[in-house]
Amino acid sequence: MSNKMLAAMKTKPSAGAELVEIDIPKPKPDEVLIKIKACSICGTDKHIFEWDNWAQSRIKPPMVFGHECCGEVIEVGGAVRNIKIGDFISAETHIPCLHCYQCRTGDMHLCRNLVILGVDTNGIFAEYAVIPEVCCWKNAPSLPIDIASVQEPFGNAVYTVMESNVGAKKIAVVGDGPIAAFACGVAKAVGAARIYNLGMMPFNLDICKIMGADISINVVNEKKYCERIIDETNGGVDVVLDMAGNKNAVNDGFTILRRMGTFTSFGIAPAPFEFDMAKNIVFKGATVIGINGRRMFETWYQLRNLLDNGKVDIRPVITHHFPFKDFMKAMETAISPEIPSAKVVLLME
Amino acid sequence: MSNKMLAAMKTKPSAGAELVEIDIPKPKPDEVLIKIKACSICGTDKHIFEWDNWAQSRIKPPMVFGHECCGEVIEVGGAVRNIKIGDFISAETHIPCLHCYQCRTGDMHLCRNLVILGVDTNGIFAEYAVIPEVCCWKNAPSLPIDIASVQEPFGNAVYTVMESNVGAKKIAVVGDGPIAAFACGVAKAVGAARIYNLGMMPFNLDICKIMGADISINVVNEKKYCERIIDETNGGVDVVLDMAGNKNAVNDGFTILRRMGTFTSFGIAPAPFEFDMAKNIVFKGATVIGINGRRMFETWYQLRNLLDNGKVDIRPVITHHFPFKDFMKAMETAISPEIPSAKVVLLME
Amino acid sequence: MSNKMLAAMKTKPSAGAELVEIDIPKPKPDEVLIKIKACSICGTDKHIFEWDNWAQSRIKPPMVFGHECCGEVIEVGGAVRNIKIGDFISAETHIPCLHCYQCRTGDMHLCRNLVILGVDTNGIFAEYAVIPEVCCWKNAPSLPIDIASVQEPFGNAVYTVMESNVGAKKIAVVGDGPIAAFACGVAKAVGAARIYNLGMMPFNLDICKIMGADISINVVNEKKYCERIIDETNGGVDVVLDMAGNKNAVNDGFTILRRMGTFTSFGIAPAPFEFDMAKNIVFKGATVIGINGRRMFETWYQLRNLLDNGKVDIRPVITHHFPFKDFMKAMETAISPEIPSAKVVLLME
Amino acid sequence: MSNKMLAAMKTKPSAGAELVEIDIPKPKPDEVLIKIKACSICGTDKHIFEWDNWAQSRIKPPMVFGHECCGEVIEVGGAVRNIKIGDFISAETHIPCLHCYQCRTGDMHLCRNLVILGVDTNGIFAEYAVIPEVCCWKNAPSLPIDIASVQEPFGNAVYTVMESNVGAKKIAVVGDGPIAAFACGVAKAVGAARIYNLGMMPFNLDICKIMGADISINVVNEKKYCERIIDETNGGVDVVLDMAGNKNAVNDGFTILRRMGTFTSFGIAPAPFEFDMAKNIVFKGATVIGINGRRMFETWYQLRNLLDNGKVDIRPVITHHFPFKDFMKAMETAISPEIPSAKVVLLME
Repeated sequence: MSNKMLAAMKTKPSAGAELVEIDIPKPKPDEVLIKIKACSICGTDKHIFEWDNWAQSRIKPPMVFGHECCGEVIEVGGAVRNIKIGDFISAETHIPCLHCYQCRTGDMHLCRNLVILGVDTNGIFAEYAVIPEVCCWKNAPSLPIDIASVQEPFGNAVYTVMESNVGAKKIAVVGDGPIAAFACGVAKAVGAARIYNLGMMPFNLDICKIMGADISINVVNEKKYCERIIDETNGGVDVVLDMAGNKNAVNDGFTILRRMGTFTSFGIAPAPFEFDMAKNIVFKGATVIGINGRRMFETWYQLRNLLDNGKVDIRPVITHHFPFKDFMKAMETAISPEIPSAKVVLLME
Repeated sequence: MSNKMLAAMKTKPSAGAELVEIDIPKPKPDEVLIKIKACSICGTDKHIFEWDNWAQSRIKPPMVFGHECCGEVIEVGGAVRNIKIGDFISAETHIPCLHCYQCRTGDMHLCRNLVILGVDTNGIFAEYAVIPEVCCWKNAPSLPIDIASVQEPFGNAVYTVMESNVGAKKIAVVGDGPIAAFACGVAKAVGAARIYNLGMMPFNLDICKIMGADISINVVNEKKYCERIIDETNGGVDVVLDMAGNKNAVNDGFTILRRMGTFTSFGIAPAPFEFDMAKNIVFKGATVIGINGRRMFETWYQLRNLLDNGKVDIRPVITHHFPFKDFMKAMETAISPEIPSAKVVLLME
Repeated sequence: MSNKMLAAMKTKPSAGAELVEIDIPKPKPDEVLIKIKACSICGTDKHIFEWDNWAQSRIKPPMVFGHECCGEVIEVGGAVRNIKIGDFISAETHIPCLHCYQCRTGDMHLCRNLVILGVDTNGIFAEYAVIPEVCCWKNAPSLPIDIASVQEPFGNAVYTVMESNVGAKKIAVVGDGPIAAFACGVAKAVGAARIYNLGMMPFNLDICKIMGADISINVVNEKKYCERIIDETNGGVDVVLDMAGNKNAVNDGFTILRRMGTFTSFGIAPAPFEFDMAKNIVFKGATVIGINGRRMFETWYQLRNLLDNGKVDIRPVITHHFPFKDFMKAMETAISPEIPSAKVVLLME
Repeated sequence: MSNKMLAAMKTKPSAGAELVEIDIPKPKPDEVLIKIKACSICGTDKHIFEWDNWAQSRIKPPMVFGHECCGEVIEVGGAVRNIKIGDFISAETHIPCLHCYQCRTGDMHLCRNLVILGVDTNGIFAEYAVIPEVCCWKNAPSLPIDIASVQEPFGNAVYTVMESNVGAKKIAVVGDGPIAAFACGVAKAVGAARIYNLGMMPFNLDICKIMGADISINVVNEKKYCERIIDETNGGVDVVLDMAGNKNAVNDGFTILRRMGTFTSFGIAPAPFEFDMAKNIVFKGATVIGINGRRMFETWYQLRNLLDNGKVDIRPVITHHFPFKDFMKAMETAISPEIPSAKVVLLME
């Protein structure tokens, strides 16, 4: 094997990225080197590509970005214990320090010294990548590679839903992006009795519906949908999964939440906004649960159980496949408002 | 309307029962009188009919027995506030005192002064019955009457499953009676990833399978099924729902439970038995949850959500319908080991 | 007994109140009439007295206001079952409908049709008052009447602390009003390992310290107290109890909260404010719990257990006692920024 | 330093042990070598010493036994990352595999491949011992060495109490051994409103009382203590902590537990016994929680918080200190029914 590889890099602190040839990285003692089989594009990657305010404050070019992937282990560091050459793995992207309070009490996904793959380190939009052993998740060899790659964002949805106790309840999924669509699928799989889905994009609302939403509401067109939901549910939904995060989404979510309900917060607003904590949380006796990443590794076991036993079919959320060499086209597809898309996957030949 | 009605009574302290004509009861101020539309036979009713040790110690003939029912409200007591003549109700059968600690802290189904309908008071195997307002659950007028009647035992299954947090988990349902069958249905509806079902009766195991069990095990015929389950699940199931309660069932259940797993205990053994608490609970770090009745009324809202939204179809569990006048034949069907049966429902003309 | 009584009324829609003579009210069938022994002034009463925006939108003069009280039952309605003449009761102030979803599932303190005593109905700043039986809490005859009256706000603190799981944890109590002081006492009683208390009033910070705060921080004088707390706790406190609610308090609270921590929200901001949900809740994996009222009646049992067994001494929070005829002076004491005070109690002769 | 050390060994498969001189062990890459400063005797060590049935089935002589200890790190393996020479550590005694389901989901203390220090490996009754890095808990240098050594069993008590949610509740601690005494101390520290303590040994009941028990009951002398407790608590205690495990203790515990109460099971019976699961768990709606080891490392953080902030003083439980050379005398003290004792600590010179 050559010691060079193709990689999608942020070469400079401005919008865009480049496909370049660079050295294949070397694993440290507690890392493995994988040959990427598939990778996929996250909203975070779009921010990095577009070089928005958040990206400017966090990303240090030159670097390889990207974090959703799967691949075959081709080399293991000297201290690696449980991963072997030939294993087919997906990457957990939260790299924990393993010795802070969170790491030692079962919450390593919110490690105090958290490092994010492809954000704070070189990522996986490349032919090869190094992954710490602690972040390796072994897949069944038979798992399709596109599914294997998107398990990471699917895990966000699984974590969000499983923390929210939706069984036999009426819920709302606010947002219609890929993780909202996954969340509709998981919520249906674990017994949400009725799922309202609020979104803005007909293409994406349709995917959410295929995944499990019972009632789709396009908030651009509909009027008085909050009143309607409160009325139909006799006081509001039991659980809101906020997969959007912006001011309108949050306000709608709390409006349609019943007293003593649960509001699970995954979506990220681009900026702070005016919020009525007294009305939304205190007077309502609401519980709000912040979701970041995935439980390591309870969420991964859960998503394996769901996928292996046919409880959720996530293929409808993967709308595009590109060969890795067409990375720029894939990124354009993921970003362009003119091109309807959900999850965009890149495949290595 | 005549002031007489047909009722199935325990007329004397011995095996059997009689269909007799007695006065229609009068509701007290906080009770309603219902015209029964359907009623159904519970295991408890069989014990009372057969006059076993438990029945001899608890039941005081003469009395009308039976507790699973639905009916139309035809008279309301003077202090009744929320139930009206014409309402179609099912009966919760745990009658709470409303002022003990449990009643005032959300656990009225385990009231310190609990009275059980048809056990400690006159029951509902009759054309009419009185029900305390607090025990009335309003049904949609469109709900089929056999379904409406069996909501009470279905509620046992819903309570058992919902306390056990089965979503995306591998579980075992131990037992194959009607409530085990309901539990398979509910567990599947709320996302159990794989359901092992252990039983002894092919007829009943088949119903459990229709309801949702993935793997049926007839413990009479199979060998080494515990080893098999531990092996297939890589250490044991996450959750055991014990719907049988006898020594073998309990031992099997704990054997196949993984470390830190949950064992939910609904089945009732006829007598105490030798139990290894250290091995089963302490060394395993297991949690055991005792289930009695149904949460009042969280479980009822949950079962309504499941039924109304088509998440569980409980009709396969109802194997027999009889007109009420054939009560003795219905009871024989429910009891006889020669006649395969699950839930037996009686319909009024 | 005369049929007239002295009462503190909002006679008109403007600031102030008047001590007037009015008819003693009559209990409805499910209510009792009590002769007030003590009552106390809540922040809500100050808003009503001062006629702020909230009061203008909610209160309908003429009405008797006030809701914290204790008294002796002197008459019971015809449907009252468990309260007897001569009982010494305190009043729960959330009047539930008893038939909505929340009421039937153990959360009646957040009833969908909630009516607040002394806000939505005539209250208890009077010699006599009617209380629904469901809101009566029987006290031991030996309980001092000032303690008996302030159990309602003490219950807010107990509910806040008990939902927050503070045992063996480092926490912060943000705010220094009477309920913050109660919260310090409860948190200490149930084993908070270290309590930071943030406030602005030296007089009140001192009371919080007497009640149990380990480290008092006057945010007016101190600099960099957030950095200090994060440093001393090696990453932030485990739990924040927000008893203030305003923008600065909320921001400080989230700043000093560790990842995966719990923020319990009781304080009420006068208006919405800019809030960074992504940073405070999502990225931190925080859980936010809204607290309104008290659990009916789990909180009351908890507070009885704490008081009866000497786990908390709440007397330091009661800074002033007035005879009821000096109501206007008591209200002035409670309101004036020049007169340091915490809880102000009125005693009947 | 010599390469020999003094160690207490099970040299052969029979009762007793010997103080012998053996080679100082060598740490593997992920282990550290500590110079023991103090160690202490656990009930498990007594079983091993006395060579009871359990010991015969589990222990493979020759081996060094003992597991409760503290010491100074004097050598670290090549893969050790966070422990340094000179660190003052205590040992967690559950050695996890780090890759099974339990290890990867926050329950490594119940690892499927669990190895117990001093039971399944050479232990710490010696001048030096090797400890896996994952089992090292760093102490403050100022922590007294006897306290540091008994943190492990103290942790059992902390785990037991913290899982049981005892704040503002009435509880019973069944048993009077050292961990029962610790449990009384922790329960008092985290706000148990009233603690009943059932035991058989006056010397030990007194220690439990010093630690925090409110009411001591010697079950040998008292009659009808169950009735008394049920009566005084108006229906039974909210929580039972079973630190004894034998049949009588378990039966008493369930008898005095209120409906919907929590029974936390730490004590180990020497053999299975007849148990009425229906009456004790099902009809009562009880929850039973099995406790084994300590949460790694949430419990250790909790116990540090309790000790550092003066919430529990555990010194009264340490009744004897011996120099390590008097190991046999220390063991006799711990075992002999004639010599009253609680925790026995051995100190290195």
